Amino acid sequence: MASSTAAALVRPAQRVANLSKDVWYVTVNEAAASCSTPVINLGQGFFGYNPPSFVIQAAKEALDRVDCNQYSPTQGRLRLRKALSGAYSPYFKRILNPDTEILVTTGANEGMLSAFMGFVEAGDEVIVMEPFFDQYISNIQMAGGKVVYVPLHPPEKGASEVCPASEWRLDLEELRAKVSEKTRMIWANVEIPCWNRHNPIGKIFTREELEAIGKICVENNIIILSDEVYDRLYYKPFTRIATLSPEISRLTITVGSAGKNFYATGWRVGWLIGEPHLIKYCGAAHTRICYSSVSPLQEAAAIGFEQADQVGFWEESKKDMQRKMALFNEIWDELGIPYTEPDGGYFVLANLSKVHFPEDYPFPDHVSSRARDFQMCWWLIKEVGVAAIPPTEFYTKETEKEAEDYMRFAVCKEDTVLEAAKERLRKLKDFIR
Amino acid sequence: MASSTAAALVRPAQRVANLSKDVWYVTVNEAAASCSTPVINLGQGFFGYNPPSFVIQAAKEALDRVDCNQYSPTQGRLRLRKALSGAYSPYFKRILNPDTEILVTTGANEGMLSAFMGFVEAGDEVIVMEPFFDQYISNIQMAGGKVVYVPLHPPEKGASEVCPASEWRLDLEELRAKVSEKTRMIWANVEIPCWNRHNPIGKIFTREELEAIGKICVENNIIILSDEVYDRLYYKPFTRIATLSPEISRLTITVGSAGKNFYATGWRVGWLIGEPHLIKYCGAAHTRICYSSVSPLQEAAAIGFEQADQVGFWEESKKDMQRKMALFNEIWDELGIPYTEPDGGYFVLANLSKVHFPEDYPFPDHVSSRARDFQMCWWLIKEVGVAAIPPTEFYTKETEKEAEDYMRFAVCKEDTVLEAAKERLRKLKDFIR
Ligand SMILES: Cc1ncc(COP(=O)(O)O)c(C=O)c1O
Ligand SMILES: Cc1ncc(COP(=O)(O)O)c(C=O)c1O
Repeated sequence: MASSTAAALVRPAQRVANLSKDVWYVTVNEAAASCSTPVINLGQGFFGYNPPSFVIQAAKEALDRVDCNQYSPTQGRLRLRKALSGAYSPYFKRILNPDTEILVTTGANEGMLSAFMGFVEAGDEVIVMEPFFDQYISNIQMAGGKVVYVPLHPPEKGASEVCPASEWRLDLEELRAKVSEKTRMIWANVEIPCWNRHNPIGKIFTREELEAIGKICVENNIIILSDEVYDRLYYKPFTRIATLSPEISRLTITVGSAGKNFYATGWRVGWLIGEPHLIKYCGAAHTRICYSSVSPLQEAAAIGFEQADQVGFWEESKKDMQRKMALFNEIWDELGIPYTEPDGGYFVLANLSKVHFPEDYPFPDHVSSRARDFQMCWWLIKEVGVAAIPPTEFYTKETEKEAEDYMRFAVCKEDTVLEAAKERLRKLKDFIR
Repeated sequence: MASSTAAALVRPAQRVANLSKDVWYVTVNEAAASCSTPVINLGQGFFGYNPPSFVIQAAKEALDRVDCNQYSPTQGRLRLRKALSGAYSPYFKRILNPDTEILVTTGANEGMLSAFMGFVEAGDEVIVMEPFFDQYISNIQMAGGKVVYVPLHPPEKGASEVCPASEWRLDLEELRAKVSEKTRMIWANVEIPCWNRHNPIGKIFTREELEAIGKICVENNIIILSDEVYDRLYYKPFTRIATLSPEISRLTITVGSAGKNFYATGWRVGWLIGEPHLIKYCGAAHTRICYSSVSPLQEAAAIGFEQADQVGFWEESKKDMQRKMALFNEIWDELGIPYTEPDGGYFVLANLSKVHFPEDYPFPDHVSSRARDFQMCWWLIKEVGVAAIPPTEFYTKETEKEAEDYMRFAVCKEDTVLEAAKERLRKLKDFIR
């Protein structure tokens, strides 16, 4: 048939030619769709409940206003930029200029792409610490950049003993060695979830470590992209790298997300904060990517920031998430399965090395060819009815062994859903050896 | 100060390095902001009124639903893809598969970028007919593509006589001559607004012309990007290029916009329609650009499409826009200024060659260095209090002369605003010679 010939002739661009199914597709669309009973999805980090009512109300009121339904300025609605300046200036310890230092984007995701598109060109290198958030990699590649990985190292005794998170370390000499003339940016995250066979932990960089990373960036004029989307869900104090020194501030772009802050991942409102010489080029890229971001929900996010402190939302939000974490983790205690509570965010890592799925389980090829956690994930969905994320997706092939015994569960779900998931996970008892 | 040194060292990517102020910025932000009385903005094509109440209501109800506030599938909410299939299959004369042939994007804009990112790589050429929609150019450049322009030619007697729109023509041999081994895509628009010194007209390609363009594309395996965002505001029947033949369908990606359809430009919901071998790569690019699009407003758009025919919205929408056009154009009749009513959309082109602003008017440099319409635009904002768009923005330097006597006015505004604008434009009487 002519159709297939024509299709064959239409060559895609290299940047999208590899259509390998990503983890979200495999777990949520493919495995889950083929189950007769609905699967309980603790995979992706979307919330299982609504944004707080004062924010929903604000969104509904915005929908009645003509200007809120039409194009927002490309850099974002002024009210949101002012609200962000109000909310973040105290943390940044300087007054953020809403006109030149804040850019509203279509989720944190498009914000990161805008930063890469604004500063990375074909052949430039971007350093990414491993494990990484998968979207980064394709974002960097979209801009024509080359990803250079720097692994975090487990403590020396990590394979045999329980070691504190602080012992995981970034080897600064190794980082330095990865810096080249082509290095344009580095991905820095406040918290990096990491784990090894015996000890899943959440690593928060100390002030000293961030200073050392910052120093290397200042010396080499490397832009720092600091992903702080979980900033309102930190259970311990953390350092914002942009605040360490004026020299580091000048190189730092900080990423935020209303979706994460207000339980509204589908709203696609995020932002970048940085000095004017950085933000202006991110803004130019953003305009060329999607012109402007969704207007009424920007207004709602603005009102969210204006009112959140007043109604005690941030405190309540943290408390509630920690409570959910404790509630869900009861099942691991019951099963004797080790797990880690993170210092920020809402993902629990459980070590399922003791759980043995049948050796001859009929996995499809694209699952059996992946690390053990992909098979565990598939089996959990099909046989237990719970979806979680296999963490090797966030590792390169060379180092994925470190992560293949783990499974990532998102607890940002209704209590009843967490209880139902626990009930299903109880079945694992029969497979523990 | 160290700051400026550091700033100088942070080199932007080439694709955003040119921060020349675009027409939207110059007119709306700069000129208008410096006026003491608020300017009446008939420049940009945002609507001066709200989406219809059945769609607003749908959006509010979506905000109460948990799944509508969270990430939508990357290819878009199923309900919207189904609604689009329902609405467009009759026009496309085949059943559009919601799973493989429809992709929801963040406005038509990000849809177009997804198409370019999906198929255009560094060095590839994209043919654009002139005049063009300005965002195309930067979209193509973001993907590393090179823009190749093909002008539409005015009728031979166009400078001295009023000629029908149909006499404007695309020289097919000229188009053929621009095709090279590197040509990957062509921008095809159903209607192209064009004009010359004496005769502003709106050109709709005839079926025969589109067939000829399609033939060249099929012969050379060139993807056709058909921008049909004004499809519900056509006052004459028009041909969808994708429907001309199976061979052309195989190469055509059609672009749509809920923002334009439902008076909600700030909602950022658009879509691409095309065969699976095209849509899958656009989808891969879209996922890498912004992950997914705004979820609750997709649901509202879905309900909009489900109910629009029932409530007679599309018919009413057309009638209302034509009425606004007639209402506004009364001022040109009164002033004896020639103008054109388009066959689709909501932009009126007026020929202001008779209007003479003072020779010594103090224009800023970046305005006086542009074509006459930029100066007219600035002067209209400052002295008359009405903002419109100078059309040379949509032309290359070589051919802009054709357009510099015109000004583009958007009539998608409240009647009271149109009346107020007319009242202000009455002042032009004193400047007509
Ligand atoms: C570390 C990190 N950064 C960014 C994002 C994306 O945020 P948004 O939904 O605002 O695009 C996520 C979402 O999962 C994330 O985990
Ligand atoms: C011809 C054309 N295409 C596309 C767009 C962009 O549509 P959207 O707002 O859905 O991104 C516009 C907006 O003005 C337009 O005029």
